[in-house]
Amino acid sequence: MAEKDQNKEQFITEITPKSEDFSRWYTDLVRRAELADYSPIKGCMVIRPYGYAIWELIQRGLDDRFKATGHVNAYFPLFIPRSLLLKEAEHVEGFAPQVAWVTKGGTEELEEPLAIRPTSEVIIGTMYAKWIKSWRDLPVLINQWANIVRWEKVTRLFLRTTEFLWQEGHTAHETADEAEEETRKILALYKEFAETELAMPVVAGRKSESEKFAGAARTYSIEALMGDGRALQAGTSHNLGQNFAIAFDIQFQARDKSLQYVHGTSWGVSTRLIGGVIMTHGDETGLMLPPRIAPYQVVLVPIPRGNWRETVLPRAQQIRDALVAQGVRVMLDDRDAYTPGWKFSEWELRGVPLRLEIGPKDIEKQQVMLARRDTREKIPAPMDGLAGRVKDLLEAIQQNMFDRALAFQKEHTSATTSWEEFAQIMEGRPGFVVSPWCGTEACEADIKTATQATIRNLPIDAQPGGAPCIKCGKPSVADAWFAKAY
Amino acid sequence: MAEKDQNKEQFITEITPKSEDFSRWYTDLVRRAELADYSPIKGCMVIRPYGYAIWELIQRGLDDRFKATGHVNAYFPLFIPRSLLLKEAEHVEGFAPQVAWVTKGGTEELEEPLAIRPTSEVIIGTMYAKWIKSWRDLPVLINQWANIVRWEKVTRLFLRTTEFLWQEGHTAHETADEAEEETRKILALYKEFAETELAMPVVAGRKSESEKFAGAARTYSIEALMGDGRALQAGTSHNLGQNFAIAFDIQFQARDKSLQYVHGTSWGVSTRLIGGVIMTHGDETGLMLPPRIAPYQVVLVPIPRGNWRETVLPRAQQIRDALVAQGVRVMLDDRDAYTPGWKFSEWELRGVPLRLEIGPKDIEKQQVMLARRDTREKIPAPMDGLAGRVKDLLEAIQQNMFDRALAFQKEHTSATTSWEEFAQIMEGRPGFVVSPWCGTEACEADIKTATQATIRNLPIDAQPGGAPCIKCGKPSVADAWFAKAY
Repeated sequence: MAEKDQNKEQFITEITPKSEDFSRWYTDLVRRAELADYSPIKGCMVIRPYGYAIWELIQRGLDDRFKATGHVNAYFPLFIPRSLLLKEAEHVEGFAPQVAWVTKGGTEELEEPLAIRPTSEVIIGTMYAKWIKSWRDLPVLINQWANIVRWEKVTRLFLRTTEFLWQEGHTAHETADEAEEETRKILALYKEFAETELAMPVVAGRKSESEKFAGAARTYSIEALMGDGRALQAGTSHNLGQNFAIAFDIQFQARDKSLQYVHGTSWGVSTRLIGGVIMTHGDETGLMLPPRIAPYQVVLVPIPRGNWRETVLPRAQQIRDALVAQGVRVMLDDRDAYTPGWKFSEWELRGVPLRLEIGPKDIEKQQVMLARRDTREKIPAPMDGLAGRVKDLLEAIQQNMFDRALAFQKEHTSATTSWEEFAQIMEGRPGFVVSPWCGTEACEADIKTATQATIRNLPIDAQPGGAPCIKCGKPSVADAWFAKAY
Repeated sequence: MAEKDQNKEQFITEITPKSEDFSRWYTDLVRRAELADYSPIKGCMVIRPYGYAIWELIQRGLDDRFKATGHVNAYFPLFIPRSLLLKEAEHVEGFAPQVAWVTKGGTEELEEPLAIRPTSEVIIGTMYAKWIKSWRDLPVLINQWANIVRWEKVTRLFLRTTEFLWQEGHTAHETADEAEEETRKILALYKEFAETELAMPVVAGRKSESEKFAGAARTYSIEALMGDGRALQAGTSHNLGQNFAIAFDIQFQARDKSLQYVHGTSWGVSTRLIGGVIMTHGDETGLMLPPRIAPYQVVLVPIPRGNWRETVLPRAQQIRDALVAQGVRVMLDDRDAYTPGWKFSEWELRGVPLRLEIGPKDIEKQQVMLARRDTREKIPAPMDGLAGRVKDLLEAIQQNMFDRALAFQKEHTSATTSWEEFAQIMEGRPGFVVSPWCGTEACEADIKTATQATIRNLPIDAQPGGAPCIKCGKPSVADAWFAKAY
């Protein structure tokens, strides 16, 4: 058991340096900061309380936005009968290789295997066909918070796991224009959310045909740039056109009494966002959490000198209570078994935005010491007006983290119209490279084979007529955003 | 399509009277009020937005209470490898017949089938064994909000479905006393929640050996009484002793340096609670939702006379905004296609606690008309101070609904020490019958065979030495609460 404890202590020093191996740094950090852990099931993770608290804040931020735009939540079954999954041809082709199948229930073999949802268009479409009868029933604006299973060969904590948590919106509209408007409204909502709450700048645009969702007419995405120069698809919004409506017979009586198929959308973000936050903001010291989604925005560390339990601790508790009353999320770390120095490192590693230190001398001076995680500045602050000061600092940290990430993204975005230059840049981890593309899957595939770079997305209002395609030299349809991606 | 619309209208009148067939009344109401619907998967339901909004309010009420008592949320995998499920003998025996098995992932047959969690003691215990090393790591107080699958032969919307949503708490403690304290603390929390938020009185007590959770040392439950005189198990809290700790090797170094097994608890409530609310409060008119969990606490119906869109509607919108600003959940039903009378029936059927009517004459008189769902009283109220009046009324309705349900429970609880009387009472649907029991499974089984009644629970601090067992006449261990149950 002593050995067990020792292992635990050792683990603290075992985070691979970020500069040495970004990928191992990431995994070490996720586990050491107790965000997530491996489970006995291959490819499935456990989201630990500290990681789940981040997810809860992400959920609240998104859910409030969905509701403010007229959406409601519901819950649809985990299972999809095989025959239903087969109904939309492109969809099943895209997802079948990733589906987990239930073939036995209790003691009986099932007559028809049940897929575990890899996404819920099929089951929700089936219900919409039942519920939607008239144009008066439209639009239907439903979101679901759920677990999803996709049988992945290579997995990574938060970024790609066999089971993950997400939200999936599924809407039905009277007209094509309304569906397109919804698709883009959600794309804009995702971008605003990522930038405001996660301090994670993203590029919003349209996916190429080869990268669009299986069964969609058009897919849009937000793409973030990670600290290693690779892009991360952080959210997608699909205009499904009438594809699922036709496959699942979702018809309504239109205003002119004719029978019409609805126009659908679907859209989602997942626990992958937590991976994005870690890889956007983390540094050699550990995590760095944006205040808006930090489970603890402030950690309060009392300095144990003299009879601190009688003098310092009560004052620390008062400060905690005053901050909590102002809506600040506070952890008062009054554990005896650890030194202040150990606590400083520990909470820096766990990414708490602001540390508040208080010792006997501070009490004499009627002040505390504040330490910012983002700049590592230490700032003495008078006790008087402390809560206001803390709230201002948290806002400043949030803004600074966004500004820094945006500067990083800009530094790591280049543009070229030359294939040679493109290929050369892509030998490293350059971030985004913006280059003209002819619109063919052939060129897109050739570029990927030659450089590993994929088209992350295309500007929504791309106009043809720029420089010729970097690969084939034919007229381009858009300046595409290329990157090596997760 | 015209026919489709007609069907929809007809459906309104198709709720079976409660007095005629309680069970069909229940199912008709759940579907007609759009709380839930059948899905294409046998035994699985869809929770529709109106039903899910109730669940979200239940979640918030419980989650706040869990966090206030020191619990945190996390997320564990959906899957349990077969070999792990087999480790705790009683547990697997209890759950194996109900497990759905995944045998295929993508294109490959799995070497080891994966159970879909019927409950998560096994997977969580496996992780606790990894995480818990020292007494300093205890207690671990984790809750999970998740979907659960149990292969049921007979299902009923909300009450028993193959897939359902729940929360499951799983805690680990240093001592047996602490585990018992946690188990009872949660039982008390469930009772307080059910009575305060759901206005549903419950009997809290201990389950008999035959009814306890598979693998638990002791199970406690809260039992509610439905409108048809049948009991509903509404929540359970289990003291697991060291059973799972031994099976999954969850050991820690104790204060005296010895190696010890943790003492565990687990506890849960599910979407079944929504069924309990419906069957506790519903009447011939439809649902009756307690204000605290009603998605809409007030429905505002403008009376469309004259140029109401210019006169009445703006005033209705002002009132809505004023109520929303006070934290009241309001639906303003300004649809043109329906008459006020239709809307009154519709929202009564959907159980909205308070209706607010406003027409041209009300505006002249500077008043509105309020209609309570629980008493069906209509009360004129001045516009001045309306929000305060509405909030007071909502509290009064909540209290009245609880009082009424408690009176019903008391009227439907009897006590007898005579087997003849017991058997006679149990020929109907008497509610609870409190009678002495000897503590043997044999008598418990005989009573069930003879009367269909089961022991719902036993008083926590039961003392032996009362009247002799109603069945065998031997000394009793407790006055047990019997009922026919869902």
